[in-house]
Amino acid sequence: MKLRFELLHTDGAARCARVHLPHGVVDTPVFMPVGTYGTVKAMAPEELESLGAQIVLGNTFHLALRPGADIVALHRDGLHGFMGWERPILTDSGGFQVFSLATLRQISEQGVRFRSPVDGAEVHMSPEDSMDVQRVLRSDIAMAFDDCTAYPATEARARESMERSMRWAERGHAHYYRDAPPGHLFGIVQGGMHLPLRTASLESLLKLDWQGLALGGLAVGEPEEERLKVLEHTLPMMPADRPRYLMGVGYPQDIVAAVARGVDMFDCVMPTRHARNGHLFTSEGIVNIRNARYQRDTGPLDPVCSCNTCRRYSRAYLRHLDRCDEILGVRLGTVHNLHFYLELMRQIRAAIAAGSFAALATRIMAIPRRSAPPMA
Amino acid sequence: MKLRFELLHTDGAARCARVHLPHGVVDTPVFMPVGTYGTVKAMAPEELESLGAQIVLGNTFHLALRPGADIVALHRDGLHGFMGWERPILTDSGGFQVFSLATLRQISEQGVRFRSPVDGAEVHMSPEDSMDVQRVLRSDIAMAFDDCTAYPATEARARESMERSMRWAERGHAHYYRDAPPGHLFGIVQGGMHLPLRTASLESLLKLDWQGLALGGLAVGEPEEERLKVLEHTLPMMPADRPRYLMGVGYPQDIVAAVARGVDMFDCVMPTRHARNGHLFTSEGIVNIRNARYQRDTGPLDPVCSCNTCRRYSRAYLRHLDRCDEILGVRLGTVHNLHFYLELMRQIRAAIAAGSFAALATRIMAIPRRSAPPMA
Repeated sequence: MKLRFELLHTDGAARCARVHLPHGVVDTPVFMPVGTYGTVKAMAPEELESLGAQIVLGNTFHLALRPGADIVALHRDGLHGFMGWERPILTDSGGFQVFSLATLRQISEQGVRFRSPVDGAEVHMSPEDSMDVQRVLRSDIAMAFDDCTAYPATEARARESMERSMRWAERGHAHYYRDAPPGHLFGIVQGGMHLPLRTASLESLLKLDWQGLALGGLAVGEPEEERLKVLEHTLPMMPADRPRYLMGVGYPQDIVAAVARGVDMFDCVMPTRHARNGHLFTSEGIVNIRNARYQRDTGPLDPVCSCNTCRRYSRAYLRHLDRCDEILGVRLGTVHNLHFYLELMRQIRAAIAAGSFAALATRIMAIPRRSAPPMA
Repeated sequence: MKLRFELLHTDGAARCARVHLPHGVVDTPVFMPVGTYGTVKAMAPEELESLGAQIVLGNTFHLALRPGADIVALHRDGLHGFMGWERPILTDSGGFQVFSLATLRQISEQGVRFRSPVDGAEVHMSPEDSMDVQRVLRSDIAMAFDDCTAYPATEARARESMERSMRWAERGHAHYYRDAPPGHLFGIVQGGMHLPLRTASLESLLKLDWQGLALGGLAVGEPEEERLKVLEHTLPMMPADRPRYLMGVGYPQDIVAAVARGVDMFDCVMPTRHARNGHLFTSEGIVNIRNARYQRDTGPLDPVCSCNTCRRYSRAYLRHLDRCDEILGVRLGTVHNLHFYLELMRQIRAAIAAGSFAALATRIMAIPRRSAPPMA
């Protein structure tokens, strides 16, 4: 099954498209909220829908450990029925988590053996296992199982892990397409910060028929300049007729910088995780709602924001909820932060369509990355 | 200002009425979800509205400590604007919490001095202070500040605390009505389990013009038989032309037993607190969703329930969310438990109107109080 990628507009290297998936159409550039355990933390599916989320990300590693793919499989349409989300789902392969969360890890050509961080049980995951889980989850987009290169890595280590990822990608591809798959499979370009390895990884992948390509091994702690170098080197070589997905990125400024270079898809825990820590994205920068300066502030969190949180509640109330560890505080912060990201993507798409992306990018890049300055 | 209490139907001692309050009409018998810190835990106001909640309870003690009445006062319409809830609010007086939560308590005729459980600061609360806070919160119904009698208590101790409560009630009444109040004030009958003291308390209160009367000092650990004895003794003496409120009760079976004896209003943390602990009320009894038996159970929590949780999610999903400490699990459990309570009250009102309350009561009393039996 070929993924239909309908290119609508370009503005420099930035582009707008419609991606046709089994559970619906996704407008790109798109941001995918992260739903690790079959729930975007603190949100109900109907809230995500009204925020305009078109696709969410599920974590294969986490779901394979809890509740286990066999339990998700008992539900209609896999993860969709389990979590009550009828729109598209992308699942990562578990590769990144195996390398960032699991302990006592033993890597062999066959796959990875590790201790479950949930209960200490010994678990084995191979490229074939990852594909089996993602098929059962009935993801619209499944990702290749990769050996994610740590940062920093020597050329030799980056090469070894990239080459293993390429062999695993090939095995996963054969396994995923062995009979009618529930969705599409994306390959992942690795190679760390070593540009010739990125070239080699991409060339290796392009021997097979992937429905989209991702950039992996970024957003792992590297400086922004290094990431941009990899993007500027690799993106122009990636096929223009299918989606390009930058995994795990990032701040609004990072997203805009990547869209400017031709990226179509993003995911990041930042809006949801920051909300749980009281860090709220606004047009003036990040507001730390725990700050005492908001104690008596009856104004909205962000006066130019149209989300439910900003329309109905004061900063003083949000600070109070945070201080009392009230769940509603996390909910209202998450609604706001996801609205901020999803609204940013709508603005990006509109600007590309209008040929005014550069002006939008300049405006977003001018927002301070860290805490907002004291309000007057 | 006189509270308009519109009696609609009676069925034995059970009765249906409409209580007209500044922020709207409340149908009784009514259950008031508890919103301690200006939020019914895990719920948004629009969810409470769609569940059919007509009035919520706020805690004067908690709100006076965090965020402080002065901060709530900065918001339009007090606690209504602060928490985004436009419907009626009843606030307790703080009396019960001073006696159950505060440490280093010193009671004098003037009031109570105690250490704040939030930050250890020394706080003083008098009947006048409690009225001032409740006026600022703009509660539709404010409660008299009382010295809540512990259980068990000797006759002498119960008398001393009841008599102090009566003197405080009189002071609070004068203070609340000293100029145009934002709502109505209810008195609280005390006296512990000592029936003559209950009579004396009620007689003392009836010298003043309260817009409703509550039964306090119950749901404090006494056996059910003792509580029913107090209800059966006191309720027939309480005026029939205004609301009767049983504070802090209870299980569905307790509510039905109290309605049968003439109670109109209830509040309890049970549906919300139980939800946070994975205890979910169903037509077959309480389901402990943490139980391993629900691991592979794709059926709804309660097949006869029409709430959003039961319509959209499986027991396996609810158990998974609980196991992963996901906020959505608490949310879905709270929606279900509040729906269970609010639907019970709708059924009670309909049965009283139809003259069939006894049959409903028999059915509810037959539901086991503790965990549901294993499902087939």
